[in-house]
Amino acid sequence: MQVIPPALEALIEQFSKLPGVGKKTAARMALNILRKPPNLAQNLGNALLQLHGSIQLCSNCFTFSETEPCAICSNPRRTRETVCVVEQSGDLLAIEKTGVFPGHYHVLHGALSPVDGVGPDEIKIRELVTRIRRKDITEVIIATSSTVPGEATASYITDVLETEKVKITRLACGIPMGMDIKYADKYTLAKAIEGRCDAL
Amino acid sequence: MQVIPPALEALIEQFSKLPGVGKKTAARMALNILRKPPNLAQNLGNALLQLHGSIQLCSNCFTFSETEPCAICSNPRRTRETVCVVEQSGDLLAIEKTGVFPGHYHVLHGALSPVDGVGPDEIKIRELVTRIRRKDITEVIIATSSTVPGEATASYITDVLETEKVKITRLACGIPMGMDIKYADKYTLAKAIEGRCDAL
Repeated sequence: MQVIPPALEALIEQFSKLPGVGKKTAARMALNILRKPPNLAQNLGNALLQLHGSIQLCSNCFTFSETEPCAICSNPRRTRETVCVVEQSGDLLAIEKTGVFPGHYHVLHGALSPVDGVGPDEIKIRELVTRIRRKDITEVIIATSSTVPGEATASYITDVLETEKVKITRLACGIPMGMDIKYADKYTLAKAIEGRCDAL
Repeated sequence: MQVIPPALEALIEQFSKLPGVGKKTAARMALNILRKPPNLAQNLGNALLQLHGSIQLCSNCFTFSETEPCAICSNPRRTRETVCVVEQSGDLLAIEKTGVFPGHYHVLHGALSPVDGVGPDEIKIRELVTRIRRKDITEVIIATSSTVPGEATASYITDVLETEKVKITRLACGIPMGMDIKYADKYTLAKAIEGRCDAL
């Protein structure tokens, strides 16, 4: 017997395809939307339908954008000489929120992970090399995650760019702001000690 | 400067209205959908747009349904004499999954909570009383949550139904299945001792 109405079941099914959303959370979301006025469902539905139509990848940095090139690449006040390499557009947004980086980005759309079938050709590494050769870029900041795929990607890019005339830097690794040292894991603490800088 | 494309921003805004979804989770969901083929967004969008159109409240038990009355109320093999009172349709689905309850339901669509402005008239209590008087219901199982509003609702319904010719029961309270007694909180343990039953 069908206890859950098919339209509700369909929505739960779709919600459970989102990252971090299991069957129970999906059901909670769908029932919550059902209890609220229909315009919430309409607005979310329309936002989803319009998403891919208006957004493409910027041909320069490969971030998601409604304009070509994107707002960052077309901003004359940003320095073109420094390129920050990130795994995903979400990382770009996180760095933008800090407000301290005035340069351009390069979104790889992934990290090297041979077990998942992601090699150098699956992410935008070749495009990064082409871009560095074509334009007068002086520094590449590798801002991949501190994970195994992120570290592998960083090493690979460092190797690939070794022969190019460009300075290669990485984000500092260490104790997060406001964290008590005794709660830091030993690997982070070791990195923080290795990367110690002048206190002045 | 607009770093996030407006269509993406709109979707993040809509996602963050869902229960348990903050700005960061909403951004993660939206970016994940953007990275995947457009049909995921289309399917979720369409499921949302079709949701309210086809689903209404069953006029008998007030659960969400595409049919009138709902699949449970119109099932001749279910016993009409026992009614299980729940706060939300999600609770109904949880009880249905156990497969042990053969009766009908009554969905209150909330629990009494004066501080949130939810009084007896805001939830389907009057409808419950009308239903009990109209039909030959012999037992009402109150299955509200073990929370302050849930308990308040249970007490209120018990008082209201006191003068009606109907047996009123509550779900058993005690140690969850598979839980080690030493990890149970003292209130649960006290309830389990009070509600102890014959071991035979």
